[in-house]
This record gives sequence, structure tokens and C-alpha cells, in this order.
Amino acid sequence: MQKRASARRGSANLARMIVIMHSDASEAEIIQVEERLRQSEANLHLKRTDGEELTIIAAVGDASAVDAMQLESLAGVDRVMPISKPYKLASSEARQHERSAFQIGSAKIGPEHFCLIAGPCTVEDNQRAIDDAVASSAAGASMIRAGIFKPRTSPFAFQGPGLAGIETLKEIKRITGLPVVSELTSARHAEALAEAVDVIQIGARNMQNYNLLEVVGKLERPVLLKRGLSSTLDELLQAADYILKEGQEQVILCERGIRTFETATRFTLDLNVIPYLKLQTHLPVIIDPSHAAGDRRLVPAMSRAAAAVGADGIIVETTAEPELALCDGPQQVPVAEIADLAKAVFAHARLVGRAPSRNF
Amino acid sequence: MQKRASARRGSANLARMIVIMHSDASEAEIIQVEERLRQSEANLHLKRTDGEELTIIAAVGDASAVDAMQLESLAGVDRVMPISKPYKLASSEARQHERSAFQIGSAKIGPEHFCLIAGPCTVEDNQRAIDDAVASSAAGASMIRAGIFKPRTSPFAFQGPGLAGIETLKEIKRITGLPVVSELTSARHAEALAEAVDVIQIGARNMQNYNLLEVVGKLERPVLLKRGLSSTLDELLQAADYILKEGQEQVILCERGIRTFETATRFTLDLNVIPYLKLQTHLPVIIDPSHAAGDRRLVPAMSRAAAAVGADGIIVETTAEPELALCDGPQQVPVAEIADLAKAVFAHARLVGRAPSRNF
Amino acid sequence: MQKRASARRGSANLARMIVIMHSDASEAEIIQVEERLRQSEANLHLKRTDGEELTIIAAVGDASAVDAMQLESLAGVDRVMPISKPYKLASSEARQHERSAFQIGSAKIGPEHFCLIAGPCTVEDNQRAIDDAVASSAAGASMIRAGIFKPRTSPFAFQGPGLAGIETLKEIKRITGLPVVSELTSARHAEALAEAVDVIQIGARNMQNYNLLEVVGKLERPVLLKRGLSSTLDELLQAADYILKEGQEQVILCERGIRTFETATRFTLDLNVIPYLKLQTHLPVIIDPSHAAGDRRLVPAMSRAAAAVGADGIIVETTAEPELALCDGPQQVPVAEIADLAKAVFAHARLVGRAPSRNF
Amino acid sequence: MQKRASARRGSANLARMIVIMHSDASEAEIIQVEERLRQSEANLHLKRTDGEELTIIAAVGDASAVDAMQLESLAGVDRVMPISKPYKLASSEARQHERSAFQIGSAKIGPEHFCLIAGPCTVEDNQRAIDDAVASSAAGASMIRAGIFKPRTSPFAFQGPGLAGIETLKEIKRITGLPVVSELTSARHAEALAEAVDVIQIGARNMQNYNLLEVVGKLERPVLLKRGLSSTLDELLQAADYILKEGQEQVILCERGIRTFETATRFTLDLNVIPYLKLQTHLPVIIDPSHAAGDRRLVPAMSRAAAAVGADGIIVETTAEPELALCDGPQQVPVAEIADLAKAVFAHARLVGRAPSRNF
Repeated sequence: MQKRASARRGSANLARMIVIMHSDASEAEIIQVEERLRQSEANLHLKRTDGEELTIIAAVGDASAVDAMQLESLAGVDRVMPISKPYKLASSEARQHERSAFQIGSAKIGPEHFCLIAGPCTVEDNQRAIDDAVASSAAGASMIRAGIFKPRTSPFAFQGPGLAGIETLKEIKRITGLPVVSELTSARHAEALAEAVDVIQIGARNMQNYNLLEVVGKLERPVLLKRGLSSTLDELLQAADYILKEGQEQVILCERGIRTFETATRFTLDLNVIPYLKLQTHLPVIIDPSHAAGDRRLVPAMSRAAAAVGADGIIVETTAEPELALCDGPQQVPVAEIADLAKAVFAHARLVGRAPSRNF
Repeated sequence: MQKRASARRGSANLARMIVIMHSDASEAEIIQVEERLRQSEANLHLKRTDGEELTIIAAVGDASAVDAMQLESLAGVDRVMPISKPYKLASSEARQHERSAFQIGSAKIGPEHFCLIAGPCTVEDNQRAIDDAVASSAAGASMIRAGIFKPRTSPFAFQGPGLAGIETLKEIKRITGLPVVSELTSARHAEALAEAVDVIQIGARNMQNYNLLEVVGKLERPVLLKRGLSSTLDELLQAADYILKEGQEQVILCERGIRTFETATRFTLDLNVIPYLKLQTHLPVIIDPSHAAGDRRLVPAMSRAAAAVGADGIIVETTAEPELALCDGPQQVPVAEIADLAKAVFAHARLVGRAPSRNF
Repeated sequence: MQKRASARRGSANLARMIVIMHSDASEAEIIQVEERLRQSEANLHLKRTDGEELTIIAAVGDASAVDAMQLESLAGVDRVMPISKPYKLASSEARQHERSAFQIGSAKIGPEHFCLIAGPCTVEDNQRAIDDAVASSAAGASMIRAGIFKPRTSPFAFQGPGLAGIETLKEIKRITGLPVVSELTSARHAEALAEAVDVIQIGARNMQNYNLLEVVGKLERPVLLKRGLSSTLDELLQAADYILKEGQEQVILCERGIRTFETATRFTLDLNVIPYLKLQTHLPVIIDPSHAAGDRRLVPAMSRAAAAVGADGIIVETTAEPELALCDGPQQVPVAEIADLAKAVFAHARLVGRAPSRNF
Repeated sequence: MQKRASARRGSANLARMIVIMHSDASEAEIIQVEERLRQSEANLHLKRTDGEELTIIAAVGDASAVDAMQLESLAGVDRVMPISKPYKLASSEARQHERSAFQIGSAKIGPEHFCLIAGPCTVEDNQRAIDDAVASSAAGASMIRAGIFKPRTSPFAFQGPGLAGIETLKEIKRITGLPVVSELTSARHAEALAEAVDVIQIGARNMQNYNLLEVVGKLERPVLLKRGLSSTLDELLQAADYILKEGQEQVILCERGIRTFETATRFTLDLNVIPYLKLQTHLPVIIDPSHAAGDRRLVPAMSRAAAAVGADGIIVETTAEPELALCDGPQQVPVAEIADLAKAVFAHARLVGRAPSRNF
């Protein structure tokens, strides 16, 4: 698998850039730039154009070397404009504009399906978590979510059961027969979590924890990668590159709301992401409406929007009694309402040509 | 009409606030705050609570007076927390949580309908604008949009035909029989525009041009008020209050994307707005996917999302030949595709219980 | 004056852009782009470069026409990159990189001085406003600020005395002998305000009220233009262009904090603006630390930073008894502390080679 | 040391909150809230206030338990307002408003000094890094910065020499005699780096990598904690709490620019942070002008501003030949200019009562 990834990388890794010289740049300065370009390890082909008003140098070569050239520092350079995208393996071009589709246990993720992932935020009480998972399955979920490691802003807040919750995750998988997704927050728990669950989630706060991305890329488990709360889409796709280059090809991206000036809702859910990313990447993209809204009253509407906009699925927090939850209670959808939510989202998904990702 | 507005304002205008004193505030400081509160014109009822750890003073009274008290300046005050919402006439409470519904010519705006507003960004060529409007009508639009005043970032860019385009707006109205919406950018054109069109649009850049809001509030025309690109929802509703207090009750709010760190799309369309505003205001809310995306390839998907999330309508730019447009070409949907877009959004709207706002 | 502005515009108005074609663009598509460019009114010089990997078309011509071409809509076009800056008259190039310096009454604004503008936020009580102005003058202010029109988010909040305050502004000018700056919010008060004061302020909310910018550009009064709270620096300089093109050459820019995700302070004061704008524009730039912080305890420190970073001045709100203010009390510096603040900022200003802008 | 930290935590850990019931909440709902509060492990003291318009319940107790109660989920609750700050050990109250001051080798960090940290971004060439460090020392730096692990957005970019650079760090320390600060990006290199350097830096991307914060808190090395690029100040102080609770008391906070809508500069340097944090925390706070600006031409001005605003120091990237740097070349100050920069910042620092943190 590593070999195919490398092959792909090779072809995607051709960088193009344009160097625009100041209109008063001297010939010596232009030549210095050309020499710097030629000396680089990027093995660049150059094309210089002298206009009446300005000189442009176009260069094509190996992307990784190009990134490091710092040409803006040279005298006479006005601007360096990369034409290539900064991400490689995640780009649409890396798979000739064919969309990726994965089968994960009984669940299908890809352009013909809509995948409902549901379950409790965090395993707090074992039996309650199992009951919530069973109810989510009955309502039509294709995958179960349940956290045992919970990154919390304050060191004094409840952080999940940790490894003590591993058996509950296994039990949820055994009873529902559905694949289970759970978040990894530290490299030292990687093996244990990978052994218990089907999909490893990397949370928003760790999207740029590159060490963890490399570890998870080697685990032979599909990865659900959440967008950082102030990460650009370019950065999200480069984070995916960290995982893909380790050989793990099944990466699912997830928009979960970005941080903006608006505080009426907890985050701003950026649904533009779905049609935009479809133009840029072959990877599936799902939506997390629960964390974005921070208020369960907004979750059903945003879930419908996610289905209509063409997302490959949603991941929703649900629990029997939100008011008992130690963590994120206000945003969890009561189990009693999850079947209605599922029915609604599947209706909108069907209108855009997507079937539920699990037969039930 | 002014009278009813005043009556409503009276009831909505009761403000509640809580003053929290520092834990080491002296009795003299507490008394000074109470006196300041009692002296105000807000005619406040006070309730002081002395806990072991801190003293709290709750106050209820006339909102406009409360706003101006600047209590944070007083010694011993830790924090002043308004409990009431800063907007009054636009709040759900101002109409006992009943949603507003308007009939504007042949178009219905309200909770049972989905209103498609379509048409060219700006009148550039008269015949082309009329053709675009006719095509939009044929595709199912309930209202026609067409601009003649176009606020542009650069003074050297095309700014629309100005008053010279008034006749074209009238012609569009005559030929299609549909209500027409057009943007007003200056008080001095208010009368002329109001005479020609059915709905006056206030653009994002003018959302806090309070002078213009007061002028438009007196025009006896429904108003389409766009959210400023960095305006909070509280500020949007207070801007609506500026119009409502002049007696104009038909105000339609419009989310058109906010400015965030993400530059992959022109703006970030904030669809959380729809379920959130339904909890806060009685006014209808529509979505402008064209300006938010800045790229026509994203517009159909975001339009479907707007319908599914429960918006009261969308306003879409469309034209026969986007590549000929002098203004905002890249975001305009070709007329040839508008019928498909209409069909798709109405299908999603029906799933949430909404009929097209015009019989056709 | 208008004539010189036009002459300057001519030279600054040369636009350069680069059109990058998709790597698989056909020859027909490339020719279509070239024809579109040639047909434009921009009178463009073209330079086509065919590389092995992609074709680039460079074009130079009249900026205003270039802006309107919408080339991204054409088949085969990957990207259109403007090389020229979007602002013209405000750019450093428009004055051959020489910094503008103005004499306004007794005050000097420019690269060799530091201008302290101080005074009350809004005229509430006439005598109090006059006293505050006198105290500000005694402390070393070069100019007095005082508002009579106050844009407020809520229509129910105190909005200043309006025209009733004009006499107080004149009195402040007469007594202190200093130039007075005051905000204009509506075109209909333009003449009256211009007759009373020396500098017209355009507030942040009206930075893109282009109608007002054009009105103020014709008033024959220097203009203090505040950056909109989510306006980019490119947009600020284009707003300045609106005023400059009317013939008013004395425009002072003002950073007053931008809206970000951080809510600990009211706005985020962006001091990068000062060294950045010095590279881009010939216009003076000052800082408003009062509105940015929203908390008087932060004002002295941010004022010192403004002096050290190389700003051309600051504009500070000050009043005798902040706790009596109807508007923005918490951010106003007590008059008793303004002399200390002035002393501190002038000390930092001297270190960067600037003298107080008024001899006293 | 752990014991004192615990003791401090105890006293700082008292949480206060106010629960505001809906104006139409029933008595049963109010009682349910009171019972939930009483049952919690937070051992809360309650105080109920029944006003004419609304009921308020004030509660005081153990903060960590309070955080987890999710009271917003209960019927009848309008709002829950925490009065206490979410951070504990980092708060000013935790040290009775006395500012922390540390001696790290020959360098002093605290309210009476200004600490200049300078050196190359990343060790690329060993001899060059040593030369840059020596030049920085000669110019007046109190501490040397030099990275060997470099988190990069793209997996294909240069990521520093890794452990191979450890010897160079030791050599820098030996030759200059100054303390060295270097970034840690992964728990597995913690011991090796702590053995070589004096201060461990946690970069912006890892500010919420809680696992790493806990590891670094146990290393017995002072920590330089950078603010995440979209982290609020509350979150920064809570991240400091993660380190402080492990027993490490020497934590230096660092503002390095936040992500906003403005793209003219790489990040927006938020200098409000300095006067604001002085009100909230006892920890020292320094400024990183290099990463915020992303352009060396802005660095001297922003460094001066940092000194004038009252920062405890700055951390500046400097190198002999920026145009040779593989990483962040455009923002590095040439070594030849660092002495001028040092002289300027110390002059501004002296005006605010601070001496250089090292005698030289």
C-alpha cells in the first residue's frame, strides 16, 4: 500500500510557481533569481518572460523542494505565486478526479451513500452508553460514535474514562454489529484504541498535531479527521496528506464548525466546505452539526442542511438523557428524537441521489 | 401603524439586568450602585441579594434608559449582565412567538412558503436584464431582484446605471407581473426607488447606516435587510429595530455570508442563522448563496441547504451570459440552469412543509 | 485641486494582471481569452507565454476597465491574478513614496510629529464638554475630538445632541484655539458640521458608505477616516480613494480595532497596520486605543505602543467623570490622567524621532 | 512543589455561578434546579432570590465539579452564568495579585526586566546556527532561541534536523553561556530535549495538545507557552493550568499573533493582550513579533511596540543570511540589524521602568 501511495505522490508532487519581479528589477537581480531556481534540488524547468512592464519567471518542478526556497528574500522579487496546490495526496488530481469510496465493516462511505454516525459524546456510564448505541442503531445509524478520551479546555474538567472505557467500546461493537469510531488524543494509546475500534478520530484540537497524524497513519485503521477550529481548507488537506503519506488511504474529513466573531452559536458551521471540497479532494467529507451548534435545538435543521448540500454523512451526538451528561449535554440529541432526525436526513439525502449507507 | 408599533415597543421594552459586585466591595459602594440605579429614568425595581461570597443587585425597568447607565464605571462593580435581549421590536416576544408572514404582490413570505427571488445582479444592458427576469419568472421565481445602485469597493469600478435604470425596473415589473426588489444606497434616491419597486433592499455594507435605516423605515415599502459581513445576529436584529420603530413592519432578514479567516470561499455562509433566528425573532429570514460563495459552482448546493435548513427563501443572482457581466459574473447562475435549481430547492422545501410562494 | 488628482490617477491607474490557463486548456480557449482582453476598453498590452506545463497571459492596461472583465468565467481559465494594487490615489506610488504631511490649524500631522487628539466621546453636557476640552488642551493635545452625532447599535440608545451641539463645538474651538474633529453620519448634516469644525470624521460603520465618502470628499475639510471593524487594509485604502478622487487630499487614516474571535477585549487593535501601511500609502495613520480596548485600564499601555510603533498620532476619549457619561464611559480616560498619558506617549514618540505636533 | 501547587489550587478553585430561570419557570422547575445543585459533588452553597420578574439562584462551591453540571439542560433554566474565571492556578488571585518573576540561568523574567530572546528559527547548518547565536548574544540577547523540531503545515516541507540537532543546542549554550529555548513537538523527545536546553517551548499548534502539556509540566524545566492562533485568552490561561497543575511553576506566556480576516499580514498581533493579561494572571507574558508579521520589515516596529506596551520580553528570529534559510526566511531579522533592534527596544523598555534582563 505504501508503494502505491508513493507512486501517486510522485505524480501529484509537481509544483508550479510564478515569480514576478519588481518593475524596476535589474537584469542582475533577475539572473540571481534564475540561478537560485536552477541550483535548487527541485530540478526546475524555467520560463522567463520579459514584458514591457515587468519580468515573470515561471518554474515547474518538485514540490517539496520548491516550498523551501524563500525567494521573496531575494532582491528585485515582487511576489512569488504558487500555482500548484499545497496538498498533494489528498487532491482530486491525485486520483484523476474520481471520488474515493470506502467500505468500513457494514458501512459504505462515498458518493452514493449517506452515512449517519450517531452515539453518545463520551462513555460516562457503561450501560447508558450501550443503550444509546443500540438506540442509535435502531434509528438507522451506520456507525456508532463513542469517546473515551475527551480533550477538555480545563484540566479540572471530566476527561472521559480513558482506557477503562475500552471494554465498553468493544461491547458496543459486539452488540450493534456496527463499526465504531472513537477519538485518539495521545500516541501512547494508539495501539489499544486501534485494537478496539474500526475508525480512529482525530479531533479538531489535534488536526495539526503532526506527530499524532503520523502515528495514526500507520495504524491500519480508517481515520476520521476533523477540521481545526481555525484551520483553512488548505491546511485540512495538508493534514490529510500527513496521514495518507503513511499509507492509510481511508481518510474521512469532517467539518465541525469554525471559530468566528459570532458568539450566538458556539461555532459557525461552514457548509460551503462540502461543494468546495468536492472540487478539490477525492476524500469523503462529513458534517458534525452537534459541536458546531452547541445547542441541540439547532441540530436537526443543520443535519438536514448537511444532507441537502451533498455531504457524505453526519456525525451526531445522542443520548438518552442529555441532562445527565457530564460533558456537552446541551448539544446532544435525545435518543427519542434520533429516529425522526434519521428519517428527515435520509429523505433529503435521497433527493440528491444518496441511499442510507447501511441496509436496515 | 406607528401607534401599534409603539404599543409593542412598550411591552417588549422591559429590561432586566444583574449587577454583580466585587467580593470585596464595601457597603458604601453597594449603596452607591443602588442609588445610581434608583436615580435613573429607567424607573427600576431593585432586588438586592447578599450572599456569603458576593452581593448581587437585580434590576428591572425601561430598557432604553438602562442601556445608558454605564454602571461598570462605578467602584466595586465586577460585572453588569443584561438579561434582556438588546433588540425589542424584532424579538419573538414582541409578537408572542407567532411568526410574521407577509403578502407582497403575488408573493408570500412566511413559515408555510419558500420564496425564490432571482434575477440579474445589476442592470447593465436593459434588454438583457428584462430577458433574465422573464427567464427567472418562467423558472419559478416569486420575486425578481435587479440592482441599479451597486456599492463597489473601488471608486473606479462600475457602480450600476443609477436612476437611469429605474425605467428598466418598472418594465421588469410590468412584463413579469412579479414584485421587484432593488437596493437603495443613498437617502436621496429613496423616493424614486420606492415609487418603482416593491421591496427596498439594504445591503450588507449599509446595515449599520442608521440614517438610511430610518429613511427606509418611513417609505411604506417592505424592506430586505442584509446582515453586515461582520455583524452579530444581535446587531442585525437591532438594525431591524431601527426600521420597525419607524412603522414599517414588513422586514425580511437576509444572511449573505460573514467574513472569517477562511478565504477559499468569498465569505462563510452561516446557516446556523436560520434555526437560531427562528428562536429569537418573528421576522422571516432568507439566504443569499450567491454573494457568500462568490463562485457559481457552489450556489446550487448551498441553495438546497438553505431550503432544507428551513429558510423562508433564497435570493439568487442569475443571468443569461455570466461571462458578459460587468459585475459579479463568477457568482451568477446561468439562466439555463435556474429552472433546475428551482426544482431542486422546491423539492427540499416541500420536505420541510413549505410550498413555493407563488402559484405557477 | 481636482485636476491634480486626475493627473495622479492617470499615472497610478495602470493595472497589471496575469491570467493562468488550466494545464489542459485548448488553443481555442486561450485565443478566446486573448480576444476578450483585446476587446476590452482597458487598451491592454498582452504577452503570452507558452510553457511546457501551462500557458500564462500577462496584460497591462487601464485599471478600472480591468477590474470589470470577469475573466474567471471564461472556459480554460484557472486563475486571474491582479499584480497591481486595487487602490490608486492612496498608494505610495501615487506620491513617489514621499509621505504626506498636513498642517491643520495649529496642528501638524506627518512623519516628523506625533499628534495627540483628545476630548470627550460625545457632547452630553455643554459645560462639561468644554471643560474636558480645555483640560485636554492643557495636557498637550494638538486637536480636540468631540462628537454630536453618535451612531448607536440600538435605536433606543442615546445618539448624541445632534445639531443642537454645534454651538458647543464652536465654543470648544474658540476657547482652546485648537482644531476640532467631529463625526459626520449623514449627508444632510454635512454643510453644517463642516462650517463648525476643522476635521470631519467618518466612523468605522460608515467606512463603506460610499455616498457619504463622496459627500465628505467635496467639503473642503480634512477627513479622519476610520477603518471598518472588519475591513481589510485594501478596502480602507480604496475607501480613501473615494475621498481623494473628489479632490480632498488631506485624509488621515485611523485604526480603531478589528472584530475577531477574541472577546476579552472589545476589539483587537491591529498595530501591524502602522508599519504595513507605511509601505503602502503616503497618508498619515493614527490609532484609536479607546474604542479598541473598551476598557480605560488598557488605554495608556496601548497609547504608548502606538507611539513606539511609529503612528502619526492617537485619538483618545477623555472626560472629567467617566462614570457620568451616557455613552462609552468605561473606555474614557479621566481628565486627571490625561497629562500623564500625554507625557508618556510623547517620550516614546521622541525615541522614534517625532515631536509633539503642537508647540506648548 | 506539587504540594504548594495543590494548596494554591484549593483556594483558587472556588467557583461562583448564577442560574437565571425563565420568567415563566414553575416552582417545580426551580426546585429541580436547586436539587441538582445540592446533589452535585461541588458542595455548593445556594442563595435563591425571587424577584417579581424572575428567580435567580446563586451558587458557590468547588469549581471542577461545577463545570460539569450542564444545568442549561434542565427545564425552566434561561441561562447559567459563571462568575468565576475558568482558569485557576494561572489567575492573579492564585498569587494574591503579586506578579511572578523567574531567574533562568543568567536571565531574569519578570516585572522589572525586559528579556530579549533571539536566535535562528531552526537549526539548519550547525555552524551558521552557532554564529547567529553568538551574534545575538553580542547584541544583547538574554536568551537564545533555536528550533530542531519544526511543525510544518505540509508533510513534504523541511521539518528541522530533529534529535540530530541536540548537540548544536548544547554547543550554543556552552559558547554563549546563555539559557537556550527550543520547541518540543512530541512527548517521545521530551527527556532528550529537557536534558539539552533550559526552557521548553510549546508552539501555537500544540497549545491544546493536552497530553503534551502534562508531559512538559513534569519535566522540571521552565515552559514558554505560545497562544494558539485562534485561542482565546481564557483558553491560554487554562492551557497554562495544565502545566501548573503538574508542579511546574515557571510558565511564560507568549502572544504570537492570531488568525483574523486580515491577510495583509500573516497574523494579527494582539498587543491588547499585555495590559489585559496583567489584570488576569501572575505569569510573565512576552511577544513574538516575527511569526505575527511574517515580514521582517515589520519586526522592528512591532518589537518597539511590545516594549512600550509593557511586555516582559520579545522572542525574535534572526539569522545571518535570511535568504539562505529553508524555513521562514522572510520574517527573520538579519544579524547585522539585531543590535539596532536591541538598542531600540531597551530604550522603550527603560521608559516603562524595565532594565535589560541580563547585565552586559
